[in-house]
Amino acid sequence: MEIKQYKEEFLAHLQNKISVVEPQNLYKPIEYILELGGKRLRPILVLMGVTAFEGSHKKGLDAALAIEVFHNFTLLHDDIMDDAPLRRGKDTVHEKWNVNTAILSGDAMMILSYQLLDFYKGDIYKKLMQLFNKTALEVCEGQQYDMDFESREQVSEQEYIQMIGLKTSVLVAAALKMGAIIAEAPEQEAQKIYDFGLNLGIAFQLQDDYLDAYGDSASFGKQVGGDIMENKKTYLYIEALKNANPEIKKELLGWYAEDLEDNTEKVRRVKELFTLTNSDRSTQDAIQSYTKKAFKVLDTISISKANSFVLKQFGENLMTRNV
Amino acid sequence: MEIKQYKEEFLAHLQNKISVVEPQNLYKPIEYILELGGKRLRPILVLMGVTAFEGSHKKGLDAALAIEVFHNFTLLHDDIMDDAPLRRGKDTVHEKWNVNTAILSGDAMMILSYQLLDFYKGDIYKKLMQLFNKTALEVCEGQQYDMDFESREQVSEQEYIQMIGLKTSVLVAAALKMGAIIAEAPEQEAQKIYDFGLNLGIAFQLQDDYLDAYGDSASFGKQVGGDIMENKKTYLYIEALKNANPEIKKELLGWYAEDLEDNTEKVRRVKELFTLTNSDRSTQDAIQSYTKKAFKVLDTISISKANSFVLKQFGENLMTRNV
Repeated sequence: MEIKQYKEEFLAHLQNKISVVEPQNLYKPIEYILELGGKRLRPILVLMGVTAFEGSHKKGLDAALAIEVFHNFTLLHDDIMDDAPLRRGKDTVHEKWNVNTAILSGDAMMILSYQLLDFYKGDIYKKLMQLFNKTALEVCEGQQYDMDFESREQVSEQEYIQMIGLKTSVLVAAALKMGAIIAEAPEQEAQKIYDFGLNLGIAFQLQDDYLDAYGDSASFGKQVGGDIMENKKTYLYIEALKNANPEIKKELLGWYAEDLEDNTEKVRRVKELFTLTNSDRSTQDAIQSYTKKAFKVLDTISISKANSFVLKQFGENLMTRNV
Repeated sequence: MEIKQYKEEFLAHLQNKISVVEPQNLYKPIEYILELGGKRLRPILVLMGVTAFEGSHKKGLDAALAIEVFHNFTLLHDDIMDDAPLRRGKDTVHEKWNVNTAILSGDAMMILSYQLLDFYKGDIYKKLMQLFNKTALEVCEGQQYDMDFESREQVSEQEYIQMIGLKTSVLVAAALKMGAIIAEAPEQEAQKIYDFGLNLGIAFQLQDDYLDAYGDSASFGKQVGGDIMENKKTYLYIEALKNANPEIKKELLGWYAEDLEDNTEKVRRVKELFTLTNSDRSTQDAIQSYTKKAFKVLDTISISKANSFVLKQFGENLMTRNV
């Protein structure tokens, strides 16, 4: 089955299951954020996880929706914390309504995501819940580390990788493993597809860092250099600081202490410093290394060659994007 | 077993299970709010629910903690929404830390509450989860109605009762029913103890409204008249407006449009208007009526006389407090 079809079936399921009931002020923001669009990467991975282990992807639809609702709950609360005005080019919920509505609708979304797993029974249900609980808590921990790092002077590469692993990759990994659980795959195999997702997720997030600075501005959708403007301690920055001589280090720290109106020169020069310290190269190396790790695990999973190929192709498409 | 012993065992379990791990900025606020104290009403009710149906109360400890963690999560997020500086006489989490920390730690608490139910197995687990999901969503709906009512001109008694039912009583009811589920009570009996809790919870909340205006200021712990100062549309106010003649209605609406520095005269006069419109009496009637309903259901539950007596006594103690 094609990725496109997975997405279409998922969207139909979303339309079907998510409706606005009373009190509308609670449920309208939920419908709003869920209909803002997006790649729907995580729900598609649930369905692919089911299919990989010869299950019917339809059985994965509720878990796929649970994961997507949970993911959007985290976006909703993160947007409050970041004071972000826009999400996918539209007003964020706390902008369109207000902060209190965004907090409460987010809370309700988290509960809804748990409720969606109600469809599953017995052992499968318990296993899904345990994985979901563990993952959800890890996502909160990742968000906390991310906030902690903002006010810290130094963050090591390992700490950064741990943070993005928790904040974003565990959910990607859990999506695939939930699919495996639904298809009643053996625990060992389910864990392997989790590890595939975890490594791919880290590669994906590192690539996000890379593209934020070096992506194609026409097609990237976000402002190129946004992370630099906001002084975000991305992998590029951490690597640059690590490899910089005292002079470059001082200059880089100087730029990252600035909060400018016009960022043109800052973005240009910081990217130059990234290149001078080879941090663009080492970031690409890290992306390569995690992608390779992912594919290496993938090769050891006991699934059909055809199913393995679909996952590999999906991963490759994900990693060759330039937007 | 004595209520006091339930509370002690519960607190020991809380100490045992809740610890601060990394990242500390996420888990410290959780420990902080859970150790602020309180009556621990809901966890005690879980344990009483287990015992009522001849189960070992120890089996209820994890569910009791789940309910208490969930309840404190709602307090944490409600305090942000109400911009409340104090909780049980101490700084609220968003005051002691900041709003972002309070949002995220609250999120993690909700997940922790789900995770605590992991202890249960099979059918009991699924039933607990379904009740927990339903209840948690209702609590959010109640909070939304409460916020909606703030900006509405008129709220009917029925709407108000529905709101407090969702916002506070369903959790009290669910606490008892979770106990019944853990003791493997028949669904019909479990539902009866839920209804007992629901009615008692509404009576309790109406009494809270009453005591806020007419409680003993020395022992009430809160400022007497706080709801009046904040123009809260409590049952007293709704009843007063309903029964007021045009003149009193105009005066009452006038007071509730005020936001004063010194509230002495406002509180004195509004209480007088409550008395003039008999709203103090009809609030007490409503409290009596819901308490009676609760005890009437209690009498129909198939449990031992001794266990029924314990629940009745607990309810009576709750309803004869003057603080």
